Amino acid sequence: VKFQLTILGCGSAAPTTRFNPSAQVLNINENLFLIDCGEGTQMQMRKFKIHFQKIDHIFISHLHGDHFFGLMGYLSTQHLLGRTRELNLYAPAAIEQIIHVQLKASETYLRYPLKIIALTSKESEIILDNKIVTVNTIPLKHRIYCNGFLFKEKPRARNIIKQKIKDFNIPIYKINAIKNGEDFTLENGTVIYNSELTKAPSPARSYAYCSDTAYFEKIIKIIENVNLLYHESTFIDSDKTRAKETMHSTAFQAAEIAKKANANKLLLGHFSARYHEFQIFLDEAKAVFENTELCSDGACFEVE
Amino acid sequence: VKFQLTILGCGSAAPTTRFNPSAQVLNINENLFLIDCGEGTQMQMRKFKIHFQKIDHIFISHLHGDHFFGLMGYLSTQHLLGRTRELNLYAPAAIEQIIHVQLKASETYLRYPLKIIALTSKESEIILDNKIVTVNTIPLKHRIYCNGFLFKEKPRARNIIKQKIKDFNIPIYKINAIKNGEDFTLENGTVIYNSELTKAPSPARSYAYCSDTAYFEKIIKIIENVNLLYHESTFIDSDKTRAKETMHSTAFQAAEIAKKANANKLLLGHFSARYHEFQIFLDEAKAVFENTELCSDGACFEVE
Repeated sequence: VKFQLTILGCGSAAPTTRFNPSAQVLNINENLFLIDCGEGTQMQMRKFKIHFQKIDHIFISHLHGDHFFGLMGYLSTQHLLGRTRELNLYAPAAIEQIIHVQLKASETYLRYPLKIIALTSKESEIILDNKIVTVNTIPLKHRIYCNGFLFKEKPRARNIIKQKIKDFNIPIYKINAIKNGEDFTLENGTVIYNSELTKAPSPARSYAYCSDTAYFEKIIKIIENVNLLYHESTFIDSDKTRAKETMHSTAFQAAEIAKKANANKLLLGHFSARYHEFQIFLDEAKAVFENTELCSDGACFEVE
Repeated sequence: VKFQLTILGCGSAAPTTRFNPSAQVLNINENLFLIDCGEGTQMQMRKFKIHFQKIDHIFISHLHGDHFFGLMGYLSTQHLLGRTRELNLYAPAAIEQIIHVQLKASETYLRYPLKIIALTSKESEIILDNKIVTVNTIPLKHRIYCNGFLFKEKPRARNIIKQKIKDFNIPIYKINAIKNGEDFTLENGTVIYNSELTKAPSPARSYAYCSDTAYFEKIIKIIENVNLLYHESTFIDSDKTRAKETMHSTAFQAAEIAKKANANKLLLGHFSARYHEFQIFLDEAKAVFENTELCSDGACFEVE
């Protein structure tokens, strides 16, 4: 089952020819979740062949332009392509008026229901809980109200051992129940315990998106043991004063968070346009947390 | 002296991998005028090496997203790059609130004065008149309030004949006056008439941008004898019913307008995403108006 992150943009405020502004797509078993939507996101989706009509949930961290200026374009294109399925948008409350004034000016009445879930809490909360995933906010420390998002895959059913179906002549209609943990009773009354019939599924996987934020230890307990952590690293350590002033992080600080949260893997992104070489980000982070990779536009990361 | 149009995007509503949404830059002697600003315009400027801090005037035809969703990104980047010079924005009145709510949400206070010239008239009017250019609106016929823009270069000074400077020993401080039409008097009192000293400059050049619009003959008298005409051709003739319904034009209709207005050259653009081959647009237009070219993203057109 797929659990794959595609980076559509990993630049910061001013886009460069190298990096688009922030946007990512998380694909959990062909359910697509869009995380932030900087200008040009819909073009990046076309370029990287994201099936963007499959997206039913969009998460916007905060209302700095580099994280949402592509949203109206995406919403409009969905309308033009004839979408009728509901689209859920999780974003700071002001998004509602921003969308409203633009739809009004263009006299556009969306053909599909756009359900806006206005985020206002400063505590972590569950904002989506369905068959596929649970999503929690991760309140971050930035110049304006800002949340990261923690995606936790729902635990999957147990894997039935095929040979046992033959051995005990288990009928098809019983299989789902067994996958969900039931025992199986033979015609002679003997109970075959579930633990003999099935194997435990792979553990549920998780992904945490933390951008934009200053170094902020309060997030550690929320993201503890996460499989994959994207933590912004707008700056390198020699610019840490600038990082502090603008409430961003350095590569070193991102790695400190990854280490303290016992993450499995760290992704660095949201690079300032002032840099042209990125190896130093990787070197700084790896000195603290070895399993680190740099993002680039179009890069894919799979959680096994 | 340069009079050059660069196409940044010539697609219509939904962007494709081939065409970005509408945006163009007119360069008159290194004074840059931005015309429409679809999503991704600032990235296109970087790609096509437009010196985008030189833009002091932005013209927005109408408030369908494919003509302005890149505006906030451009305005924000100017702010981030430290612009302090005034920027003039000519657009339908609702743009003011659209910008305001987004700046407010991001708690951004622009470092430069943004002067919004709200367009509301349904008659052609002069909206800019400076040393370089006169700009008139071209009221168009579309689903919402929409203007094209006519750029007329200011008449240039006469060209002084270099040999005459030597022949009559003309001092440097007299040269500008002579370029502006003055005669020159020799020490012995003889008057050398200006017509002997100078040659007439090349005629002032003009460019008309007409998008989006249904076929609309009222524009003909406004754009009469224009050097370069961009007229939208969202559709081909076989889709003229769809063109009419959506208040767009076909390539054939664009050519009819060019012919009736006695334009020198016609550019076709704003192509619907439904087409993948564009020779048919050219063929249809050329049957009516020979001097036609197709736009493509990054294409440059010079008026000699």
